Amino acid sequence: ALAAPAIAQGSPSINWRLASSFPKSLDTIYGGGEELSTRLKEASDGKFNIQVFAAGEIVPGLDAINAATDGTVESAHSVGYYNWGKDPAFACGADLPFMLSARAKAAFNYQGGGIENYNEFLDQYSLVAYPGGNTGVQMGGWYRKEIKSLEDMKGLKMRIAGLAGRVVEKLGVVPQQVAGGDVYPSLEKGTIDAAEWVGPYDDSKLGFQKVAPYYYYPGFWEGGPTVSFFFNKAKFEELPESYKSLLRTCCQAVDQNMLAKYDSKNPTALKELVGSGAQLRSFSEDILTAAFDAANEVYAELSGENEWFKKQYEAMLQYRDDWYLYAQTAEYSFDTFMMIQQRNGKLAVGGGQ
Amino acid sequence: ALAAPAIAQGSPSINWRLASSFPKSLDTIYGGGEELSTRLKEASDGKFNIQVFAAGEIVPGLDAINAATDGTVESAHSVGYYNWGKDPAFACGADLPFMLSARAKAAFNYQGGGIENYNEFLDQYSLVAYPGGNTGVQMGGWYRKEIKSLEDMKGLKMRIAGLAGRVVEKLGVVPQQVAGGDVYPSLEKGTIDAAEWVGPYDDSKLGFQKVAPYYYYPGFWEGGPTVSFFFNKAKFEELPESYKSLLRTCCQAVDQNMLAKYDSKNPTALKELVGSGAQLRSFSEDILTAAFDAANEVYAELSGENEWFKKQYEAMLQYRDDWYLYAQTAEYSFDTFMMIQQRNGKLAVGGGQ
Repeated sequence: ALAAPAIAQGSPSINWRLASSFPKSLDTIYGGGEELSTRLKEASDGKFNIQVFAAGEIVPGLDAINAATDGTVESAHSVGYYNWGKDPAFACGADLPFMLSARAKAAFNYQGGGIENYNEFLDQYSLVAYPGGNTGVQMGGWYRKEIKSLEDMKGLKMRIAGLAGRVVEKLGVVPQQVAGGDVYPSLEKGTIDAAEWVGPYDDSKLGFQKVAPYYYYPGFWEGGPTVSFFFNKAKFEELPESYKSLLRTCCQAVDQNMLAKYDSKNPTALKELVGSGAQLRSFSEDILTAAFDAANEVYAELSGENEWFKKQYEAMLQYRDDWYLYAQTAEYSFDTFMMIQQRNGKLAVGGGQ
Repeated sequence: ALAAPAIAQGSPSINWRLASSFPKSLDTIYGGGEELSTRLKEASDGKFNIQVFAAGEIVPGLDAINAATDGTVESAHSVGYYNWGKDPAFACGADLPFMLSARAKAAFNYQGGGIENYNEFLDQYSLVAYPGGNTGVQMGGWYRKEIKSLEDMKGLKMRIAGLAGRVVEKLGVVPQQVAGGDVYPSLEKGTIDAAEWVGPYDDSKLGFQKVAPYYYYPGFWEGGPTVSFFFNKAKFEELPESYKSLLRTCCQAVDQNMLAKYDSKNPTALKELVGSGAQLRSFSEDILTAAFDAANEVYAELSGENEWFKKQYEAMLQYRDDWYLYAQTAEYSFDTFMMIQQRNGKLAVGGGQ
């Protein structure tokens, strides 16, 4: 009998590596890489494989994007602002202080030209990127002492990075670089006065409430940070069209699903944090207003220095204005009414009846 | 030479039909079916095909779900509450008055057991369903006269269907069944006093502001309606695992993308409506509170009559309470601050600097 002839199947086998910027302990954000891999593998019947490496396994977490640029890996799962020092315009595809909520961000990314703008910029770094997750509005961090007004921000040694650090510096904060594992002991010893991390679910793993119990909101520098999948452009272009389409679709499903995971985990985590000693506080109006003005100063500076930053930033402004006008109607009034019912104990089981 | 032997490729060709509940004129919501078809076709290299039929092309829009149950078509794109008259529990997978915003709905659907609960119920109708779109909080409709208080709702002949109709009936509203194309002339003649439709983008196509200029918000009966893809269960189960996974991933991408489309189109449409005469108003607190109480009465009635309704409804309650407690912190304070800046003219191009 004849042996089976070697006939090429329609779809080639692809084996890629993905460098995540995140440790496995941040299971929700790290999990986005694993989820992309699973969805691709399943939908391609095992032909399109991406092996995921946690931060530090191939390259340090903060180098993941660069590893995709230089082809060390085919792909990275990261946040654009980690590359802020290399080029501030990287931050525009992630988040800028006082910009868009997660929901408005999705609309801007997919329907407002956000993805196209970012990829136009990324071309010079041999990258193609698609959104691949969001945390929602982050928290404003943990503070050893209560911060009652702008005056209390002055001289505060705070672990806060990148563009956000440059903004709060204008309020008198002294930004500190502290590696993830050193944040807790630094707060405990008082080497730093405050630290921002992510949101309730991720923060709750680290026990900050024991050493810096004042937990402020909102994290105005991250209203809706987009986590992105970055692909080496040459590798991406080599893919058959069917795989490119599948990859885009899988990225978008992961994008929505990560936010759904955070939104599902954060409410419970926040209750537990408060139960174990976290003192929940909102930033005062004078702090938010001063920070907003400071952010606008930084945007003016960066727009003067960097054409790509200016272009992406300005594309967001009209969108932001339109969204926050619109959202004042049905969305805000519905949410506000529901929150009032919540405060009146009317939403829980048995509460309304 | 030998002719190429007929060797089965790994993936079979699938040709399905999808009955949409929507006319092509509602391009965003109808477009979700087309988008699913395109994503599937591209990612499967042309092997998984779904042909989309608008409302009325195979079956009337309101019969699309039933056509998937009985196998007339393999799939439908619809909203569960259209089948409310057949079984009220169908509404739970779509939306209930005063329930979850689109964002909380996604978290509940994907991470809170929503999809699993709904499919457990749908099994008796030979259906499998996945979320496939959301409109965001809808508007509360168009009114010929201003509605200043609960008193003005009494005796109001309003085009409003299903569960929402049963709720506002308790406020004295007289729900009317009016087909889509007859709404405008009915409002013009005064045969009806009010009509609810969707949101600014879809509403703007019909010119209601010319005959019923008072445009109220929020549409408290639809805080985050999930549009769903329904699949005939036997047909779904016949799919290879790779196609099932691909289908789920494509549905989720469409789900997020429809909301992004509405969120991108509604802000502009609302500005245009106001520019052409719409009088924007919020429902008064007494109307919302009375409607909330009325909704709870309806839920108690339905829970007593229908076990599937009760089970799905109660699964949402704790989730709703947790979400609206959590959302009062970072999410709400960020949005509120941004809306204040919007009102102060600080968000538009040049506004902040």
